[in-house]
Amino acid sequence: MKHAVSGDRLQPLSYREVRVHDPFWTKYVALVRDEVIPYQWEALNDRIEGASPSHALQNYRIAAGEEEGAFYGYIFQDSDVTKWLEAVAYSLASVPNPKLEQLADATIELLARAQQPDGYLNTYFTIGHQDERWINERDNHELYCAGHMIEAAVAYYETTGKGKLLDIACKFADYIDTVFGVEAGQKRGYPGHQGIELALVRLYEATGQPRYLKLSEYFINERGQEPNYFRLEADGRAARFGQNYLLREPYYSLYKDGFAYNQSHLPVRRQRHAAGHAVRAVYMYAGMADVAAAFKDPELIEACRKLWDNVTQRQMYITGGIGSNHDGEAFSFDYDLPNDTAYTETCASIGLIFWAHRMQRLDPDRKYADVIERALYNGTISGMALDGKSFFYVNPLEVWPQACQRPDKKHVKPVRQKWFNCACCPPNLARLIASLGTYIYSQTDNSVYVHQFIGSDTKVNLAGQSVQLSQQTNYPWDATIDLAVSPDQPAAFTVAIRVPGWCENPSIVVNGQRVDIQAAMTKGYARINRVWEAGDVIRIELTMTIKRMYAHPNVRVNAGKVALQRGPIVYCLEEADNGAVLPDIALPEQAPLEARFRPDILGGITVITGEARRSSALGWEETLYGETKRADVVFPIQAVPYFAWANRGEGEMQVWIRER
Amino acid sequence: MKHAVSGDRLQPLSYREVRVHDPFWTKYVALVRDEVIPYQWEALNDRIEGASPSHALQNYRIAAGEEEGAFYGYIFQDSDVTKWLEAVAYSLASVPNPKLEQLADATIELLARAQQPDGYLNTYFTIGHQDERWINERDNHELYCAGHMIEAAVAYYETTGKGKLLDIACKFADYIDTVFGVEAGQKRGYPGHQGIELALVRLYEATGQPRYLKLSEYFINERGQEPNYFRLEADGRAARFGQNYLLREPYYSLYKDGFAYNQSHLPVRRQRHAAGHAVRAVYMYAGMADVAAAFKDPELIEACRKLWDNVTQRQMYITGGIGSNHDGEAFSFDYDLPNDTAYTETCASIGLIFWAHRMQRLDPDRKYADVIERALYNGTISGMALDGKSFFYVNPLEVWPQACQRPDKKHVKPVRQKWFNCACCPPNLARLIASLGTYIYSQTDNSVYVHQFIGSDTKVNLAGQSVQLSQQTNYPWDATIDLAVSPDQPAAFTVAIRVPGWCENPSIVVNGQRVDIQAAMTKGYARINRVWEAGDVIRIELTMTIKRMYAHPNVRVNAGKVALQRGPIVYCLEEADNGAVLPDIALPEQAPLEARFRPDILGGITVITGEARRSSALGWEETLYGETKRADVVFPIQAVPYFAWANRGEGEMQVWIRER
Repeated sequence: MKHAVSGDRLQPLSYREVRVHDPFWTKYVALVRDEVIPYQWEALNDRIEGASPSHALQNYRIAAGEEEGAFYGYIFQDSDVTKWLEAVAYSLASVPNPKLEQLADATIELLARAQQPDGYLNTYFTIGHQDERWINERDNHELYCAGHMIEAAVAYYETTGKGKLLDIACKFADYIDTVFGVEAGQKRGYPGHQGIELALVRLYEATGQPRYLKLSEYFINERGQEPNYFRLEADGRAARFGQNYLLREPYYSLYKDGFAYNQSHLPVRRQRHAAGHAVRAVYMYAGMADVAAAFKDPELIEACRKLWDNVTQRQMYITGGIGSNHDGEAFSFDYDLPNDTAYTETCASIGLIFWAHRMQRLDPDRKYADVIERALYNGTISGMALDGKSFFYVNPLEVWPQACQRPDKKHVKPVRQKWFNCACCPPNLARLIASLGTYIYSQTDNSVYVHQFIGSDTKVNLAGQSVQLSQQTNYPWDATIDLAVSPDQPAAFTVAIRVPGWCENPSIVVNGQRVDIQAAMTKGYARINRVWEAGDVIRIELTMTIKRMYAHPNVRVNAGKVALQRGPIVYCLEEADNGAVLPDIALPEQAPLEARFRPDILGGITVITGEARRSSALGWEETLYGETKRADVVFPIQAVPYFAWANRGEGEMQVWIRER
Repeated sequence: MKHAVSGDRLQPLSYREVRVHDPFWTKYVALVRDEVIPYQWEALNDRIEGASPSHALQNYRIAAGEEEGAFYGYIFQDSDVTKWLEAVAYSLASVPNPKLEQLADATIELLARAQQPDGYLNTYFTIGHQDERWINERDNHELYCAGHMIEAAVAYYETTGKGKLLDIACKFADYIDTVFGVEAGQKRGYPGHQGIELALVRLYEATGQPRYLKLSEYFINERGQEPNYFRLEADGRAARFGQNYLLREPYYSLYKDGFAYNQSHLPVRRQRHAAGHAVRAVYMYAGMADVAAAFKDPELIEACRKLWDNVTQRQMYITGGIGSNHDGEAFSFDYDLPNDTAYTETCASIGLIFWAHRMQRLDPDRKYADVIERALYNGTISGMALDGKSFFYVNPLEVWPQACQRPDKKHVKPVRQKWFNCACCPPNLARLIASLGTYIYSQTDNSVYVHQFIGSDTKVNLAGQSVQLSQQTNYPWDATIDLAVSPDQPAAFTVAIRVPGWCENPSIVVNGQRVDIQAAMTKGYARINRVWEAGDVIRIELTMTIKRMYAHPNVRVNAGKVALQRGPIVYCLEEADNGAVLPDIALPEQAPLEARFRPDILGGITVITGEARRSSALGWEETLYGETKRADVVFPIQAVPYFAWANRGEGEMQVWIRER
């Protein structure tokens, strides 16, 4: 069951309604389908040579009483299985695959058998830790795992129409609803790692059961109230097990100075500064936006907007990366955006997209789609190698491989790692890419919004007509987009096309007639309101010049530096093209730059070339400090898209280039 | 007893032979005498309010059987007492103070009573850990503490003529000589924290007993031989206490990947790259230079020279700071010299001076005195507030106070700390400053070297004559030095005056007659060979222009940046003078700069002023990244000497300034 679209409320089209056929993205979709999902299945079955065993499916078999043994893995190991199921669901939506569906069905059966009579489902606790249920929500990821299971259930139900996993999810959610809440005998708790909030809203949308929405709202409203639940919980454990027990809790040190790490330091409605673990934060903000939209809750909407401003105006990298602090994988303070020690977890950028997507629903302002685009084309897909076989968790903006030996940079890897152990970012990328269709369009009763320029087909009901939309483009390399708009019958409605923030001189032509964009613009969308007929074509030309981007003066590390951007793509210099000691390269302010598509490297990319300057090391051999300024020589540079870095072996990389 | 000066062997004049009366340094000497030494005495007696108790003297009383109780403090707590005694000795040499001498004498009596019959003296082990003697040299600092005691003993003997502490030291050293060595039944060990090597050479020089020199040589030669002694030792502990015991050893993690942390990863003669804990390293290199000089050991000399080149050409900050890695307080790899996460411990710069001083003895090349000067006027005294009451252990070259909250910068303090707990740097600074006379002159049979320009008087025997030398200067603010050379009788000898590496156009005039410096120069010293008579005056004019200093292109963090230096003084920008967001300031290449003495700030310093540019934050409020380059406005800057930073409250600071 889906909410009816009502009036001006923006409703995203689902991945199920949108078929992606895009030269840029189809490669990624295929990688996820052909590489990532099968690899993940092998991993879940402990068949990857050289990798530590996942044990995740075996945990379920043990919990179901079908095998003997102990739980093995992270406390959130279950979520590896449900993340895989969610990615499978999206993948099946675009390309049916009966064999894969069969594996998924069998896995769901296993989950059903592992579910406890009361609805509880978490193998860590079922296998030998029955009495530890709900005693440490702060660290134990029970509600987090439940959230991923719910998301998988909704996706699998939507895609296949099969209700088995949805039933499991509802049964578990109903049980959770009895455990947590403000009634007598209930725990006034909430998740230590957020995620279930947005999952419950999806469950509500899929089932129409308001209790799931209310449970989500409860988690959001309760969070950060005093006395802090996690403190009460810890006091309870201390009373039960003794103070020394607390010292052994894995994240103890993160809470010593308060609860910002998991955003329970303040009631969420009072939060204005994004703080703590970045993935937890943006998952929560996404859930807040969902609940705010559902209840039209102005206070919660205001908190979402203020947090949005804080993140995007003070704490976001130009790549759409967030979380500049390795310690706690966390936000830092305003303008603290170091390039070489950034954490910028792939999952955090993905979560930023989830959040932006929901903010967009609250308010069709292009700033949300701009951020989605920035993260999509830069800080998320940088997480995966071009062959889909290795992954970054951390996406730095500057790398000197030798310096990654330093303990303060040991989290920064100069090459992507095989998918081992903590399987967090790869499956998250998989579900993002497999559900890419979700981010392209949304609609109201009589308007359709085009947020992203991704080759795709969809059909929407507008003004009582079924309207076929077909988008063709070679974006992001090329700035031309053709959008065919074909209603069954001629009808008046609005097509609202996002003019990206980076684009200064767009041109939009309908059937050869130029649209007055200035007049049509509302919050960054060119609203074309006319009677549309079958065969109408909108041609969008987004002049894609090379932009020299500068950072706010308070971003101290980028003082005197410039980043190159063309369209949505942020560029970087790599050692493979420009030799070592990249910081020595300086780009003159007036240096002409040229963009050129090169099919021969990195799977086909547009490179930027130009004449920079660099100094000669001549005469410096034995001199560490000298009065003689280094001789400056002309040096041709080639910049490549940031997302494609580290696909040619280990080497230096930097996004921000000195300007002179 | 002192070695006879023989032929061309360079012999430094001792602090006892040189009276310092210098406008710049006398303030520091007085601070050490009037603030630091008395404060330290109060600390040793647990009379500092708000500080954790030192317990150091009480430990001695307990070890002497005069009080009941347990040992308290760091395992090297004893050295706090002997460092104090050493500083007292130097201070008494310049200003007699019977009351202070009485306190020292009483303390020495206490040490005597705490010494064990076999000569052993370390209160941690004597109080309840008798059976742990010499089982963990890697971590337990037994030989390190012995080294500090020996140094104090030599200094106190030299200064006061009193032999009590020297007797204690000899007795302990004689005992150590029975424990360690290559004979059957001896341990083939060496210190985990070096220092005793150079101390034993001082003991040899004070007593004339070659066994102390040989023991020092043994420690140096044995270090890093295979099988590694610390591994054998650890295996022994594992056999005795079990493997789990090893995991609890404090520095275990530092040794997992080898023994570079304490420089036992290779035999010292084969070491070419400075590695590991910087203070341990330079104390060891100083000991190596001593032993190399004593035995005229070409292989050891070569190792010293190669290590010197590595440190000063690849791993030293422009302030004379060393140790760029917080983890292990250690050297890093070549050219890895981050400004904002530097460790650059005050003690490491002091150790660099100790080492350079000994290298100078091997080879009178000005490069050694240049480094001593660089460290003296910058990276060492930066460790102490101008009022002598607070101290930096870490001396960064760039500070953004808010960023010191970040875990990767938490070792960097934006303001100096009261002297608490690990009392390492403050007493080390005290002994350096109190013995400053040591670094100014050295001599051979018929020449005297003037290494440093510090107002001072001394008397040397040259060519059979007693020669009075008197140096007067307002260095480092002023470039003029008057050196009066007055032999009892006219005599021919050489006065070799260092022309600092930073000085391009020196002028040296003897009794009004210009010296041909080019002709007189040997390894950076202008050698003036003539018949000197009473009343001769050398006027040295070192043109002190403002230098724009650049770093080797491989020092990536300093690309495009300039540091200001005038004479030996390295400058920095502070928020107090220039407002916040210092990295935004850019200094045009051609900007005229002016030096001016300002008696009104920071105790009287020469400031550098000039016109830089900075951007306006106008229009950036809500924009984090934009295409518009920031408007650039003229901005007058004032730079102050680096050593004087952080004496006006908390604020930003940076040494390296963007150039444009």
